[in-house]
Amino acid sequence: MVHRDERVIAFMDTSPVTPGHVLVAPREHANGLEDLNPHLGAHTWLVAHRVARGLRRSGLRCDGVNILLSDGSAAFQDVFHVHLHVIPRYHRDSFRIEAEWLERDSDMLESDAVAVRAGLRDLMSEGPVVST
Amino acid sequence: MVHRDERVIAFMDTSPVTPGHVLVAPREHANGLEDLNPHLGAHTWLVAHRVARGLRRSGLRCDGVNILLSDGSAAFQDVFHVHLHVIPRYHRDSFRIEAEWLERDSDMLESDAVAVRAGLRDLMSEGPVVST
Repeated sequence: MVHRDERVIAFMDTSPVTPGHVLVAPREHANGLEDLNPHLGAHTWLVAHRVARGLRRSGLRCDGVNILLSDGSAAFQDVFHVHLHVIPRYHRDSFRIEAEWLERDSDMLESDAVAVRAGLRDLMSEGPVVST
Repeated sequence: MVHRDERVIAFMDTSPVTPGHVLVAPREHANGLEDLNPHLGAHTWLVAHRVARGLRRSGLRCDGVNILLSDGSAAFQDVFHVHLHVIPRYHRDSFRIEAEWLERDSDMLESDAVAVRAGLRDLMSEGPVVST
């Protein structure tokens, strides 16, 4: 355990990608982003932000940090209690992201944006995104 | 552009990993997590959370979502203005994470945790992690 407060805990991943890999999770259960209370999510993020900065100051002497959330099995979520990975990175570590980056012309990007905006409109009944 | 408010904008990545890949960035400049105001970071997270849920409702019909932040070139940061990737995921898309997952015994994990806790103690002068 590296952090605990009333709403969130942070602890070492027992199968780390690199030494110092921390998981940050809300105590209250949520499967994923859909049922995660936004304010609890923001607090979870704040703890991950702090942990990332702590890693940079730690004796682990990492060279960078990734913060990663996986929502859904298609996104590699394997534990269905929402959590953030805080992964210290080291020059020449084994972590790699592989993807075939797409070339989308401006028409395709605009058509994607139209779809995203429609999805966001569906959430307008929740009011604007507010951080109090 | 899919979202804009006084502090944060969200827009389509022009080299998407998958169709619908959105970047969320604070308007105020920060290179990375070290100089990012935590409250601005939390608001950026809240927008990314909303965008992720919007993607799930969109006509893109994605099967999952990753949210990723890269802090430092060792963590694949290439644009030195802090931003969150919101990446819709599709069964059988090209995005892969490759890593040699480590086996750390409990002594090694505890030694990592000691280092992380020391790094976090260094930040205690900033006070506890508070989301107001």
